[in-house]
Amino acid sequence: MKQKIPYKIYLLEDEIPRQWYNVRADMKNKPAPLINPANGKPLTADDLAPIFCADLNKQELDNDTPYFDIPDEVLTFYKMYRPSPLVRAYFLEKALDTPAKIYYKFEGNNTSGSHKLNSAIAQAYYAKKQGLKGVTTETGAGQWGTALSMACAYFHLDCKVFMVKCSYEQKPFRREVMRTYGASVTPSPSLTTKVGQKILSEHPDTGGSLGCAISEAVETAVTHEGYRYVLGSVLNQVLLHQTVIGLETQKALQKYDIHPDIIIGCAGGGSNLGGLVSPFIGEMLRGEANYRVIAVEPASCPSFTRGKFAYDYCDTGMICPLAKMYTLGSQFIPSPSHAGGLRFHGMSPILSQLYHDGYIEARAVEQTSVFDAAEYFARVEGTLPAPESSHAIRVAIDEALRCKETGEAKTIVFGLTGTGYFDLTAYEQYNNHTMTDVIPSDATIAESLAKLPKVGNE
Amino acid sequence: MKQKIPYKIYLLEDEIPRQWYNVRADMKNKPAPLINPANGKPLTADDLAPIFCADLNKQELDNDTPYFDIPDEVLTFYKMYRPSPLVRAYFLEKALDTPAKIYYKFEGNNTSGSHKLNSAIAQAYYAKKQGLKGVTTETGAGQWGTALSMACAYFHLDCKVFMVKCSYEQKPFRREVMRTYGASVTPSPSLTTKVGQKILSEHPDTGGSLGCAISEAVETAVTHEGYRYVLGSVLNQVLLHQTVIGLETQKALQKYDIHPDIIIGCAGGGSNLGGLVSPFIGEMLRGEANYRVIAVEPASCPSFTRGKFAYDYCDTGMICPLAKMYTLGSQFIPSPSHAGGLRFHGMSPILSQLYHDGYIEARAVEQTSVFDAAEYFARVEGTLPAPESSHAIRVAIDEALRCKETGEAKTIVFGLTGTGYFDLTAYEQYNNHTMTDVIPSDATIAESLAKLPKVGNE
Repeated sequence: MKQKIPYKIYLLEDEIPRQWYNVRADMKNKPAPLINPANGKPLTADDLAPIFCADLNKQELDNDTPYFDIPDEVLTFYKMYRPSPLVRAYFLEKALDTPAKIYYKFEGNNTSGSHKLNSAIAQAYYAKKQGLKGVTTETGAGQWGTALSMACAYFHLDCKVFMVKCSYEQKPFRREVMRTYGASVTPSPSLTTKVGQKILSEHPDTGGSLGCAISEAVETAVTHEGYRYVLGSVLNQVLLHQTVIGLETQKALQKYDIHPDIIIGCAGGGSNLGGLVSPFIGEMLRGEANYRVIAVEPASCPSFTRGKFAYDYCDTGMICPLAKMYTLGSQFIPSPSHAGGLRFHGMSPILSQLYHDGYIEARAVEQTSVFDAAEYFARVEGTLPAPESSHAIRVAIDEALRCKETGEAKTIVFGLTGTGYFDLTAYEQYNNHTMTDVIPSDATIAESLAKLPKVGNE
Repeated sequence: MKQKIPYKIYLLEDEIPRQWYNVRADMKNKPAPLINPANGKPLTADDLAPIFCADLNKQELDNDTPYFDIPDEVLTFYKMYRPSPLVRAYFLEKALDTPAKIYYKFEGNNTSGSHKLNSAIAQAYYAKKQGLKGVTTETGAGQWGTALSMACAYFHLDCKVFMVKCSYEQKPFRREVMRTYGASVTPSPSLTTKVGQKILSEHPDTGGSLGCAISEAVETAVTHEGYRYVLGSVLNQVLLHQTVIGLETQKALQKYDIHPDIIIGCAGGGSNLGGLVSPFIGEMLRGEANYRVIAVEPASCPSFTRGKFAYDYCDTGMICPLAKMYTLGSQFIPSPSHAGGLRFHGMSPILSQLYHDGYIEARAVEQTSVFDAAEYFARVEGTLPAPESSHAIRVAIDEALRCKETGEAKTIVFGLTGTGYFDLTAYEQYNNHTMTDVIPSDATIAESLAKLPKVGNE
């Protein structure tokens, strides 16, 4: 007889995975290498050394090693907030009256409010190990900056966050969490960098952009002795660290002999989706199992469903390396009316390759329908979800309702990446019925894609 | 050999207590009855029936039944966010370099962000059971209103929250969480009640007060068919529901054969402190064990340490029943510079009697020192605490540092009632070094106490 499945499946502390899984080792078609825009050649560890930490560069470029040991210091920190629960959504199933069995892996029970901490602590650890003084980064919505601030406080590293100026002003609470953890938070563009000075002299009233904040963070890292730049998504190393999500999910499912049919994650740069699904796709790549894996992206920024698989800059400022990925073009600007943090024009090169090879399907959803799902979920499951996470909720509910129609008792697993406590301006818009859906026209996307760089694509 | 104690002790789902504990049954000196201000006589269930739900009135007045069954519907809801973890503060112990063993019961892992949900769901259940349409309440800081909104959404009850106007304007995010859960949130004073109209005609620019919001909520309950008024602290029924905290804590400690020396809780109206410590004080009352129990209150609102044990109104508006409690006088107004939610002039009658009888000691702490502790805790333990909870952290750290001096390896348990995500204005003040301590003078307290009612005190 099967055990009764509890509302929340908690692994024991010593069941936290001791290694991260590198899905690239099982991929026949490896993700294309990063390219140096200066010479059009694949980037080497030496090229990356002035910008990123040495150990992280190794992880970034390694397509072959299947597992990387999680350092003891990182494992200890993980015990602060991990294992995270795999929740059986009994309340949601009952409310939907569906035969589907729904589970979600909840990564929001830590003060940074999201899964971002899984990689932040690893990146801070390697920076500390290398004897660095500190790290720099940019943040838009603020989840990554918050996570990095917590990680740096733990390792007594300095943390310089460049926060897009309009976010700095509109999200003072996110800023204060970072400051409470000892980070210095600078509105970007700022007078502290040359690129910031230049932009301010040309556009004194600008609210800033993620592209500009990246440029300032990178400039600060390379011009300050003992600093490196760190990034919270897109990179292979970030997906590697985030596999702790999927590995824990696998272990929790195995404990109760649960076999998922559908695995769903929201997709911006790919850090959460990649972390959740990599171990499952690994099984598919090795021919051990088969799953439907669904990436959910915003209809306002649909890189998988309407983008092109090509080399492109990772940043709007066009100073970062080129990556081969599904992209809308680095000059694509998602509608400012979109509330979620899934506004990146591109997608993780690993996930892009897997999508290209048919291991992932993708779906684009409109934000009003995402907030319908978010509010419904909050009321029946009790947790106020982040707008990003709610993209996955939307599709999980849609799939569960499909099961209700067909009578199939499918098992659905989705990633609930975080909480929405700092996203209440968006909820307010939704509550006041002033939230709108803005979907880019074909012409807008074509215009942006016409500006793709030649390097790598010829 | 003892088992290794994990970072987080989680009980199993079927270990959630199935009964609440009524400490009054074990008290030799029962708390004094509530008094009807109209006739000076103890309140009866009939007196209370128009205001509160019937089953709750029974719980309120019952000094003898030691245990009340938790209804199945409430137990099911508890599984949404309970059992809550008892955390071993290994990181804090290491940072303090103390021989003390520190544990905290963390009640912040639910969307309302605090322990308030434990009683909100019980009160909503009894309202639903009675066939009511809805409930009314007031909220200041917003934790109670949020919890009640969640509970009412679950039972499909209407929820009318009167939110102190200045909070309504200064804490729009709290308001939006309540609206997301379907509550109607009205800034108080409002034109929807007679008392609100009267106050607005006399003081059109007032920012409101808790006393006024209570008056509006009570008026709305008694003038609307099918509505009752509910309250989140002070009352005996609330302490009863909150004992789920202490009972779980006892069970988790027993599981690992841990014997606490000191138990610490913050104290405003007493809902958290009473819930945490009642089961332990029950052991003391029955002569089974002995503990040091410490109530921590703000130096700006020190009802235990500088108040008087006397009959007083529970509300500033002087329309509620009289309770015998430690009070600063119902006209006492704590400094507006105080950030925490522990601003109630009185204290739970149960806890007041226990304090009077020597089962509880009390300590008043200043808020800058509370925020020193909060920031320290956030950085080493990872969780950003609510200002209220941080009062308990302050004293837990002080006691742990005393152990460091004396070399004693005492076991300290404290209640971490909630998270500080909606309190970042206070953190901002602290980060900007603009937070101050305002401690009431002896003359101010004497002046307020001189206005205590005659009823009950002669």
